[in-house]
Amino acid sequence: MSGLNNNGSLKPSVLVIGAGAIGALYGSVLARQGARVSVVCRSDYDAVSGNGYAIKSKSLGDHVFKPERVLRRVADYSPAPDYLIVAVKVLEGEDRVGLMRPAVGRTTVIVLLENGIDIEPEIVQAFPGHEVLSCLAYVAASRLEHGQIVHHSYGHLVLGKFPAGATPAATRLGALWEAGGINCKITENVAAARWQKAVWNTVFNPLSVLGGVLTTAEMLSSPAAEAFVREGMNEVCAVAAAAGYPVPPDLPQRHIDGTRAMPPYKTSMALDYENRRPLEVEAILGNVVRAGRRAGVPMPVLESLYAMTKMVEHKARSH
Amino acid sequence: MSGLNNNGSLKPSVLVIGAGAIGALYGSVLARQGARVSVVCRSDYDAVSGNGYAIKSKSLGDHVFKPERVLRRVADYSPAPDYLIVAVKVLEGEDRVGLMRPAVGRTTVIVLLENGIDIEPEIVQAFPGHEVLSCLAYVAASRLEHGQIVHHSYGHLVLGKFPAGATPAATRLGALWEAGGINCKITENVAAARWQKAVWNTVFNPLSVLGGVLTTAEMLSSPAAEAFVREGMNEVCAVAAAAGYPVPPDLPQRHIDGTRAMPPYKTSMALDYENRRPLEVEAILGNVVRAGRRAGVPMPVLESLYAMTKMVEHKARSH
Repeated sequence: MSGLNNNGSLKPSVLVIGAGAIGALYGSVLARQGARVSVVCRSDYDAVSGNGYAIKSKSLGDHVFKPERVLRRVADYSPAPDYLIVAVKVLEGEDRVGLMRPAVGRTTVIVLLENGIDIEPEIVQAFPGHEVLSCLAYVAASRLEHGQIVHHSYGHLVLGKFPAGATPAATRLGALWEAGGINCKITENVAAARWQKAVWNTVFNPLSVLGGVLTTAEMLSSPAAEAFVREGMNEVCAVAAAAGYPVPPDLPQRHIDGTRAMPPYKTSMALDYENRRPLEVEAILGNVVRAGRRAGVPMPVLESLYAMTKMVEHKARSH
Repeated sequence: MSGLNNNGSLKPSVLVIGAGAIGALYGSVLARQGARVSVVCRSDYDAVSGNGYAIKSKSLGDHVFKPERVLRRVADYSPAPDYLIVAVKVLEGEDRVGLMRPAVGRTTVIVLLENGIDIEPEIVQAFPGHEVLSCLAYVAASRLEHGQIVHHSYGHLVLGKFPAGATPAATRLGALWEAGGINCKITENVAAARWQKAVWNTVFNPLSVLGGVLTTAEMLSSPAAEAFVREGMNEVCAVAAAAGYPVPPDLPQRHIDGTRAMPPYKTSMALDYENRRPLEVEAILGNVVRAGRRAGVPMPVLESLYAMTKMVEHKARSH
């Protein structure tokens, strides 16, 4: 089995489930550092199994990523990997646990490279005794068709054991990413980091979809627009604090200033919406709203965003 | 001049400014009852001056409306009409007063056949001593190109002097519409009627634009969606009460039930958005929000809708 590798090998076996832009990009970096990286991919199977991924990236260089193995189904992979990187979207009705289960061996470390809040407890409960790492990607990347990935900008990761702790398995994985040119911060408190990211995500993602796709610049196009964004972000901060993860009070302003400094940008939810893919409404927004309701936090902006985004999602599904 | 007609003639002279779907439809009914109806139209001038309007309507019958005169500019019309029907959109930066002024004679009665709240005071102030009628149309109608108008359904009017009073001039005009098959209610309190209509308009119009055009059915697609709509409507009710025009407490539910009973419907703002026309954000939503702010009414749903609709409008304008 694979225990040996998690005890120190620099060439661990890695299986990436959901190898879209994010999974393929970060998997390729591990592979270039010698990790034995396989992928499960459904829609792009033919292209990827033939030619691998063609990755365009300024910071990492354009390159082709040929996974060790390309699989149609998780169950086709054995023995169990050292690291199972789960990069599928977190969607209502998708059985992530069932999807992962065939690849979770005794010593497999699970890495959730996904967006959202409260996306880990279900996995921790389903795989007791397993180490679950939670990983946040700050990256602009998109998948074109046929295994073509574009890494537009950014790329740093924050990684840690959920809900807290910096473990050797995290450190080893992070070291591979670092060696491959990805800034990867190992954190003692990844749940708190996830809430900090949520302050941005929870507002900008749904808002970008309302109004038929708004860029970050369009969501900050006037003082009133910025005030609305800030109000939403302040509500996320209040929910985060109530959930036990207070964020720095200047975080909304830093997020807004940082976003203004970026080129106009389409959120992941806006890209999903434009490409008629399912939206991660529950993981990104619904779970925050539910956390706020449990704690009795007033959040009129988030409730409004949630109600409207659900209408849009419902319409998109029924077309 | 035209005083005689306003003292009793059944064949008054009428000038319609902004003869889109609404202006042309209601103008045509007056013309069929013998009124001498002229129109000022800009975009459709060539088609309308040649062939008139081709109006498709189940309840009124398909017919052609040939205005007495078709004009490019208001100043080309003289003498001043008995009734000046203003059916232009109420948009920021549009000088309605300047547009109307050349056609407002000493005894001209001004009829505002337009959407929105607080759209009358500017006109009343600009034309002191003139009777200003405010008219609400409950109608689904749209303009295709080249003078073609489709009257989909409904059509009743509510008409009265602004801010209050049922005058002889209103009664005479309403009688012509009634004779032509349009249910026209003369009201003693048209400002209150406008607030009642606003309970529907202020929520459904902007919401229909957010999310890339939602129909009424899509805005009521779940209990949570309906709850959101109701919350917004309740906020409009609170603003209306603070403005001195309390509405019946069951009005939001009646609006919702009535809307559910209708076929899925696109609001006027959704149609404007789809057709890349300017949106009446300020008349329909902004004026309600400002009235609420003046009175200190909490209205988080309306504030959210307003902030987001302005972002969408800003984006649409800059494209």
